[in-house]
Amino acid sequence: MKVYSIDEMRRVLKMPDVLDVLRILYEELGHGRAANRGRTDMYSATTAENAVYVLKSMDGLVPRLGVGSIRLNSDIITWHERAGNVRKEKTPAVNGRWVGLVLLFSTATGEPLAIVPDGYIQRMRVGGTSGLGIEKMARRNAKTLALFGSGWQAGAQLLAACAVRDFTSIRVYSPNRANRERFGEEIRAELGRAVTICADPEAAVAGADVILCATNSIDPVLRAAWIRPGMHIGVIRNAELPVDAFDLPMRIVVHSHEATPQDIITSGTPPLRELDDNVEWFARRPQVDWPALPTLGDVFAGRASGRESDDEITCFFNPIGMGAQFTAVGAKMLELARGMAIGHDIPTEWFTQEVHP
Amino acid sequence: MKVYSIDEMRRVLKMPDVLDVLRILYEELGHGRAANRGRTDMYSATTAENAVYVLKSMDGLVPRLGVGSIRLNSDIITWHERAGNVRKEKTPAVNGRWVGLVLLFSTATGEPLAIVPDGYIQRMRVGGTSGLGIEKMARRNAKTLALFGSGWQAGAQLLAACAVRDFTSIRVYSPNRANRERFGEEIRAELGRAVTICADPEAAVAGADVILCATNSIDPVLRAAWIRPGMHIGVIRNAELPVDAFDLPMRIVVHSHEATPQDIITSGTPPLRELDDNVEWFARRPQVDWPALPTLGDVFAGRASGRESDDEITCFFNPIGMGAQFTAVGAKMLELARGMAIGHDIPTEWFTQEVHP
Repeated sequence: MKVYSIDEMRRVLKMPDVLDVLRILYEELGHGRAANRGRTDMYSATTAENAVYVLKSMDGLVPRLGVGSIRLNSDIITWHERAGNVRKEKTPAVNGRWVGLVLLFSTATGEPLAIVPDGYIQRMRVGGTSGLGIEKMARRNAKTLALFGSGWQAGAQLLAACAVRDFTSIRVYSPNRANRERFGEEIRAELGRAVTICADPEAAVAGADVILCATNSIDPVLRAAWIRPGMHIGVIRNAELPVDAFDLPMRIVVHSHEATPQDIITSGTPPLRELDDNVEWFARRPQVDWPALPTLGDVFAGRASGRESDDEITCFFNPIGMGAQFTAVGAKMLELARGMAIGHDIPTEWFTQEVHP
Repeated sequence: MKVYSIDEMRRVLKMPDVLDVLRILYEELGHGRAANRGRTDMYSATTAENAVYVLKSMDGLVPRLGVGSIRLNSDIITWHERAGNVRKEKTPAVNGRWVGLVLLFSTATGEPLAIVPDGYIQRMRVGGTSGLGIEKMARRNAKTLALFGSGWQAGAQLLAACAVRDFTSIRVYSPNRANRERFGEEIRAELGRAVTICADPEAAVAGADVILCATNSIDPVLRAAWIRPGMHIGVIRNAELPVDAFDLPMRIVVHSHEATPQDIITSGTPPLRELDDNVEWFARRPQVDWPALPTLGDVFAGRASGRESDDEITCFFNPIGMGAQFTAVGAKMLELARGMAIGHDIPTEWFTQEVHP
């Protein structure tokens, strides 16, 4: 059994590999040959005040790739008041580090294949999935990309977008000047090309063929008036699109119909001030028959189309993850790492037993 | 971070320790201060025919013990025809070994504390929980114990029973003579005392104060006519009690109201010939208002009583496990192992990261 580090995974697994394996995943999901267990978040009290412990887990199976997986996060969440605002933060409680893991198993033998930190796969699977949204839904001749956001996820969205379309112009908007300028430097290194940093969101989207929202915002980042025929919009958070954007004629594909994570909360837990109000969010957008919308799997299985004309506005709605994304991307990483002299070995015997309960 | 073997856990953790920590667990559960996620079983095709892969997982949190856990099983299930009967078996596909793991995390920091095979905890938590059923529900002066079953679980049930009552007579019945005689030898070593091996089930239960069913049977092992006032009955499988036993006046406490495991099945999967028909089982016993029955947590929290007179027939119904049992028993094992020179060390750094997705 292997343990790989994030640095090793970063060297082995690139965005085109992620896109390759996610294409297989959505084809398998579309045909009902892969499976997910939706995320469960279990909250309890912890030793510190104004903090909670949360254990999250989600599972996936992709037999065509020969792999099943469990992804888990074990976090301390704290609340800080800063300048009158309450901010929720994941505390790096393990000597300044966080705990997120993906455990990968063989569907041929059941054996544990590897345990890896989840951070790199997490970033690549969200970005890669938004990239497949562009591949299936943006105009083939899309040339101009506008990106909202300058955080960790924004870079992966750009990598994926550039792997599926030949963008000649890329504009990045983020409200904080220092953040967007830092991001411009970082992304030049990661992407190998310059991007235009914009101080004005409307200027960033003017004439764009594709708009990618990759923010942590709890308020809309786009305005409906900025959206033009032929545009493709990708969102990774519900709140990024304003209510009135859904009045526009828009072809929407969702990543998944899974609901908000199932929360299990123990009575010793401090009040959770920021549980997602997804149910309410959907209720306030009754223009859309959400359960009837096609999924990315439906598009890959040929049951739904991503775009039918150059004039359509298309939107890929990607706020909900899947356990099987970790299964698929993890399986690809293992395939690429096979035979390479990397990773730590742990005797498989430690994680197996002579009894079966 | 530590990895302990089953042998190490067996040396460190004894049944009285298991009972101690399960008492804490059911008190915490009864007051809503511990949490469970019910088991999910995800099935898919595997490489072999007449076989499926199944990935099972269940989570638990017990903040009073400072621990959260995930328990998982990664198995190949095969079907064999033997003498006209179809038998379902877990194949030891990893070089003759099986894969079941418990991952334990700190609710104070989130850090991974240990990964251990699940087999020993699995056996002790079922037995220990049935033991707490006896502690709370059998007559205080119970002296005679009848045990049905001679398998792996039966021994743990005996250990737990003898830790909570002073039984002066123990009788064991199992339909296969070789099995029951082997079990008699084994249990003499494990329990440190002799038991009476019975070839006749009715003789085994005659005059018993406590009857423990610990079988794999899919048919009833007891008859209603054998049940007498004052008896306590423990069952670990639905089928062990016949339909007409539920016509008797009987105080029933259930371990949990969680339903049958949630099954997620991919379309490439061969037909599952033996999925539990728990729903149907309950429907065929309408004498009992199952959702209204108290749980073991209710008894520990003082909201329900286990027995109110010496004449009552009591029954503890323990066919459904809980993730939090693994959390609690695992936490106790870690406490007892602390400072001992056992287990393999794995750098915690391998299972933590500098990013938080």
